[in-house]
Amino acid sequence: MSRRILLNAFDMACVGHQSAGLWRHPSDEGHRYTDPAHWTSLARMLEDGGFDALFLADVLGVYDVYGGSRDAAVRAAAQVPLADPLLLVPAMAAVTSRLGFGVTVSVAYEHPYALARRFTTLDHLTGGRVAWNVVTSYLDSAARNLGRSGQIPHDERYELAEEFLQVCYKLWEGSWADDAVVRDRERGVFTDPSKVRDVGHHGRWFDVPGAFLCEPSPQRTPVIFQAGASPRGARFAGTHAEAVFVSGPSPAVVRRSVDAVRAEAGRAGRDPRSVRIFAMLTAIAGESDEAARATLREYLALTDPEAALALFGGWSGVDLSGASPEQKLEYVQTESTRSALASFTGPDRDWTVGELAEFVTVGGRGPVVVGSGATVADELERWADEADLDGFNLAYAVTPGTMRDVVTHVVPELRRRGRMPAPADAGGPTLRERYGTGDGARLAEDHPGSAHRTLPSRPA
Amino acid sequence: MSRRILLNAFDMACVGHQSAGLWRHPSDEGHRYTDPAHWTSLARMLEDGGFDALFLADVLGVYDVYGGSRDAAVRAAAQVPLADPLLLVPAMAAVTSRLGFGVTVSVAYEHPYALARRFTTLDHLTGGRVAWNVVTSYLDSAARNLGRSGQIPHDERYELAEEFLQVCYKLWEGSWADDAVVRDRERGVFTDPSKVRDVGHHGRWFDVPGAFLCEPSPQRTPVIFQAGASPRGARFAGTHAEAVFVSGPSPAVVRRSVDAVRAEAGRAGRDPRSVRIFAMLTAIAGESDEAARATLREYLALTDPEAALALFGGWSGVDLSGASPEQKLEYVQTESTRSALASFTGPDRDWTVGELAEFVTVGGRGPVVVGSGATVADELERWADEADLDGFNLAYAVTPGTMRDVVTHVVPELRRRGRMPAPADAGGPTLRERYGTGDGARLAEDHPGSAHRTLPSRPA
Repeated sequence: MSRRILLNAFDMACVGHQSAGLWRHPSDEGHRYTDPAHWTSLARMLEDGGFDALFLADVLGVYDVYGGSRDAAVRAAAQVPLADPLLLVPAMAAVTSRLGFGVTVSVAYEHPYALARRFTTLDHLTGGRVAWNVVTSYLDSAARNLGRSGQIPHDERYELAEEFLQVCYKLWEGSWADDAVVRDRERGVFTDPSKVRDVGHHGRWFDVPGAFLCEPSPQRTPVIFQAGASPRGARFAGTHAEAVFVSGPSPAVVRRSVDAVRAEAGRAGRDPRSVRIFAMLTAIAGESDEAARATLREYLALTDPEAALALFGGWSGVDLSGASPEQKLEYVQTESTRSALASFTGPDRDWTVGELAEFVTVGGRGPVVVGSGATVADELERWADEADLDGFNLAYAVTPGTMRDVVTHVVPELRRRGRMPAPADAGGPTLRERYGTGDGARLAEDHPGSAHRTLPSRPA
Repeated sequence: MSRRILLNAFDMACVGHQSAGLWRHPSDEGHRYTDPAHWTSLARMLEDGGFDALFLADVLGVYDVYGGSRDAAVRAAAQVPLADPLLLVPAMAAVTSRLGFGVTVSVAYEHPYALARRFTTLDHLTGGRVAWNVVTSYLDSAARNLGRSGQIPHDERYELAEEFLQVCYKLWEGSWADDAVVRDRERGVFTDPSKVRDVGHHGRWFDVPGAFLCEPSPQRTPVIFQAGASPRGARFAGTHAEAVFVSGPSPAVVRRSVDAVRAEAGRAGRDPRSVRIFAMLTAIAGESDEAARATLREYLALTDPEAALALFGGWSGVDLSGASPEQKLEYVQTESTRSALASFTGPDRDWTVGELAEFVTVGGRGPVVVGSGATVADELERWADEADLDGFNLAYAVTPGTMRDVVTHVVPELRRRGRMPAPADAGGPTLRERYGTGDGARLAEDHPGSAHRTLPSRPA
């Protein structure tokens, strides 16, 4: 069988995620993001349709770089209003049994002791189907409202993230022994106190001397996801990530990120092939190439280019509100935004502002592929092979229509080609087993979290 | 009709909540606390059985005052292991339509910008059935693991809580106008940006200059619950709480807390009768008085007095591990624990350590009433009338058995007596409407949160 392609649906607890303006399409149900039934029916459809996981993005601010104002984003519901993604998972978990759930939470605004409990709770409630997308946050608007004037410097954010994960690993892997919970009714012992250990963490950012509050969940540590594109981000991903989320306009651009992450994993003493790498991509699939192209034309008539540039402003820090479409991107960037733009566009093309605006209008930072199931499958195979990918985070143009079209047209084709397994062979029941990134449901031996399994036992 | 009695089920995301040791009872299902089906079937049973809400306690530490060690609590699963209560609500909300959900979250370890989004998300997902039990935290073990050496001093904790709520009110009530979300597909306007306002908060503890991330939920501000027993706590409750949770061993002791809260509400310019006050109580109900007493004897044979004193140690700060059962409580207390003990026992009785241990063994700090539906209803009416209560937070001896017995035996009796309404007359659909504490689904005009509705509009 050819190399398997993993599929995650990429979504967010908001009206419009990556395709600004498409909330106006008659079939779009993004405005139902506060209705549990919207999420439970989406989750059922994804699970029945062969998706591996639902991946939820998050930010804690608004997109206010474009024109120095949030108005464009607010007007077009571009990631605002926005709900808390963690709270969407329990209802979806209760109506599914195999679908994974990746949730984005920033380490900048949480305390590890409380956040570790949240993820353990979710891992219990889902039976081990949870991933944590570890982010360090990029929006100044979030930092301001959470009581920090401006961001912590970029590299320091990763130092904080390193220590945050160390604390979490100690709590998840080291505090409660596998045989701590004994449930011995006769002796009146639910948990053997000698098998619950203090983690004794004293670091630069956090002091966590005591024991964890939670008994071990199926995966203990959730599957660790990461999305950093910078060199420091790639090093962090190579060290900690079991799954990495990349994006770029061409397989060649994406390949560079993939190679960097796999190299960093090797440098960290891990098997570079054990890291699952997903590219962002929007697939518009239909009965035929022509039908799919007609659908895309429908979408393009409803896009909101100003709101798309508002999203781009937040991602890159670059305000394109004053630029004319013909201007080369090269001339609108400043020293401080050069690397953000370069990681977005890659060095292969000399983009104009207009080209960029058109590119990000549907599907945000990722490419759009359009066509019949066979055509889309061809493109996914080409991307996977040329960029050395393990799968895709598929963004939507409209929700849930885009994912339903993938289920209808693309999944059967990928199965015929041996790129996706039959449901019975998809692996599981935990997400780590489904992704195949660990030692069964637990972290791989060569993952740095595994080192914390050996916290010293206490004399009884 | 006599004055209505409201019923909340009092629970926690753990194995054993208030009745230490009873996880050993063959019918107890507390160990299923990580299984969503445990919670969804409990919620359905409570809703169908006429309960008004499920109230979830929480702590972020272990009970380690007793003997200077957490071992007694860990051994008997006394509130440890413990999961995150917020994450239990979405699955329960998806299978119910009228039951309210009160969730305890401490202001000591959260940021208001992030927590406000969590509650708004829950209020959306439940259709306006959420209450927030605002606590300031009492366990040193939590403070240590969340990066603070010891607690913030008691009165200062309430100052922080005051400001925390101010920030939340501004975000919930003032940032998005009622008519901000217009969903105008023709004009491409989902939200009118001129109707989303910066909250401009700059205080001692928090800086939150910007706008809220969420569109208004059915209740906007969740129903505000509070449980502080100290004079400062009563003042806080009188100012902010729409519902207050009290406990004590007799109606006379409880009455003092009730009077203090209502007086403080009046002093704050609010209608003292608009505050719903709930006492903690455990009801063991059966077919007959004798059947119920036999059930209680079964429970008493399985209690764990050491673990009960471990819970008491955390609540009061008093370590009774060295005391003999005959000792008077008066002689084991120190200056620093005197007020905690006094608020627990009241001045009416001269307790021994043994009496206290027996009292807290089933149902923790609240009384236990035992008997047929008629006998329990008599006691609930007596407590409600003598202590001027609006209802009860009913703790369990075993879960879900204790609540099922209340549904079977007590609720029909209270309905016959006109103390509980038929389901169609219970009010709703929001929890605020069910409790009747506001102006429909919204805060009452005389509630301090309502003052923040008038954040200045911005020129379009």
